[in-house]
Amino acid sequence: MEIGIVGLGKMGGNIARKLVAGGHTVTGYNLNSEITKILAEEIGLCPAFSLEELVRKLSPVRILWLMIPAGAPIETTINALKDLLDSGDIVIDGGNSNYKDSISRSERLSERGINFVDVGTSGGIWGLTEGYSMMIGGEKEIIDNLAPIFTTLSPEQEKGWGRVGQAGAGHFAKMIHNGIEYGLMQAYAEGFEILRAKKEFDFDLKEVTDIWLHGSVIRSWLLELISDILAGDEDLRNIEPWVADSGEGRWAVVEAMDLDVPAPVITLSLQKRIESRVEENYSAKLLAAIRNRFGGHEIKHTGLASRYGED
Amino acid sequence: MEIGIVGLGKMGGNIARKLVAGGHTVTGYNLNSEITKILAEEIGLCPAFSLEELVRKLSPVRILWLMIPAGAPIETTINALKDLLDSGDIVIDGGNSNYKDSISRSERLSERGINFVDVGTSGGIWGLTEGYSMMIGGEKEIIDNLAPIFTTLSPEQEKGWGRVGQAGAGHFAKMIHNGIEYGLMQAYAEGFEILRAKKEFDFDLKEVTDIWLHGSVIRSWLLELISDILAGDEDLRNIEPWVADSGEGRWAVVEAMDLDVPAPVITLSLQKRIESRVEENYSAKLLAAIRNRFGGHEIKHTGLASRYGED
Repeated sequence: MEIGIVGLGKMGGNIARKLVAGGHTVTGYNLNSEITKILAEEIGLCPAFSLEELVRKLSPVRILWLMIPAGAPIETTINALKDLLDSGDIVIDGGNSNYKDSISRSERLSERGINFVDVGTSGGIWGLTEGYSMMIGGEKEIIDNLAPIFTTLSPEQEKGWGRVGQAGAGHFAKMIHNGIEYGLMQAYAEGFEILRAKKEFDFDLKEVTDIWLHGSVIRSWLLELISDILAGDEDLRNIEPWVADSGEGRWAVVEAMDLDVPAPVITLSLQKRIESRVEENYSAKLLAAIRNRFGGHEIKHTGLASRYGED
Repeated sequence: MEIGIVGLGKMGGNIARKLVAGGHTVTGYNLNSEITKILAEEIGLCPAFSLEELVRKLSPVRILWLMIPAGAPIETTINALKDLLDSGDIVIDGGNSNYKDSISRSERLSERGINFVDVGTSGGIWGLTEGYSMMIGGEKEIIDNLAPIFTTLSPEQEKGWGRVGQAGAGHFAKMIHNGIEYGLMQAYAEGFEILRAKKEFDFDLKEVTDIWLHGSVIRSWLLELISDILAGDEDLRNIEPWVADSGEGRWAVVEAMDLDVPAPVITLSLQKRIESRVEENYSAKLLAAIRNRFGGHEIKHTGLASRYGED
């Protein structure tokens, strides 16, 4: 099929590569035009250097896959496309948008007869070789027509992609996927920290993952990644204990509250990431101070406080 | 090899089946002798009807695989074997014993020159067809000699089993494996509960798992099981929300505390299981009562309390 891609970064660039390799005609536009030129040379992507040019170069019914950051970037682009596209054209948001935004964008685009499809895309940088898992929201007929694109991007022809509901459902499913991901990662991380702390057994953590990867109840793709990581440097000497979150985990936690569903492990896993970035740990300082006040328990003084104390 | 198995239940019976199928000579003893007779008929297992008979029927160096419940059953059996076996014989505890008990049993048996090997065995009822994942603790030389047994039981010749350390290390690794398992399961369970609560999207949960199983970051063997479960009855109408725990998760949580390692998600996942079995929810009642006392907030009265209130 003929498709235009907006956003040729880490994810969008690989989507373009996979689609070109699958025989599709891909026109690409990226804010930084250097990347567009590189991909034009590397994979024969047809380059466009503005949204207008991209739209002009596509023949109707136009199909546009957006792979750009959630929030303002996607909002601005969709507003621009609303004016540039014609009735019957299709806008696919393959990024990590909030599902509520996707519902509202679908409604706004439909005012002009433009079709909106939200694709929650999982697979990260491994998607290029292993294929992407795609949770898709939107009109069934439109999604059916896009099947050649999804089969090219998925791990197997008919597997790893599917319509999960109306517009917004794709991004909702991806949001929950990411919430689960946080919980899985945190559980593994805690387990390996306990193993590592048991000095008397001197576990080779990589060897343990090799055993668990075959036949154990906890074998998974994430465990394969962990095994690769531990094969390099079990002590993770070059890695700061600082974990980002991309926003979807937060939305999942808020959604759980909105729906009155208890999701304590997903919530806690998000909070552990937040905690990893906290520099001061004010609550620990306050706990130490309270213990000291009611029980005279020892406080560990910072260099600063202890110097003042000596004065 | 020639091996004796004590305990022919769900796990032990399948271990016997797999070993016989792998060409080993298996003598089996079970407390309930009916099961022994059935297996003798089904797979040609050589039956023994007492520990003494089992030991007598094996030729030295004897190898005994114990697959019986942790605690008193295994303790009693090992104490009996200490007197029945000869120096050089090998006792394998393939069950879910506490690693501290395994260390002490290894020491006690070694006083008589008997070798002890602890095997943390994962794979559940699927191990028979898919092979078991085995974390093994004990003397390297002894374990090396047992390789033909482990290769028969593992998913692949050299994969899914290995020595992780001295006696006790196998059961320690299995304990942490189970702690991780609790966390993984809880994360998935919460995610599906949120998806199901989002009525407006009317998700087909089984279809979502089918997408996630191919190419997604959260694909795993547990997710395959979940997919099978949801294919049957997504509403789980015939299942009480009552989750047991076998003890290893508890030990993992205690161990984390002993080692001063924070493991909040594993801990919380255990506590969610405990919570699932609580009938009264006294803490929720107390919270409701406190809110009522300071803020006059509504209390939902039980039939009983409300009747009394009307009096």
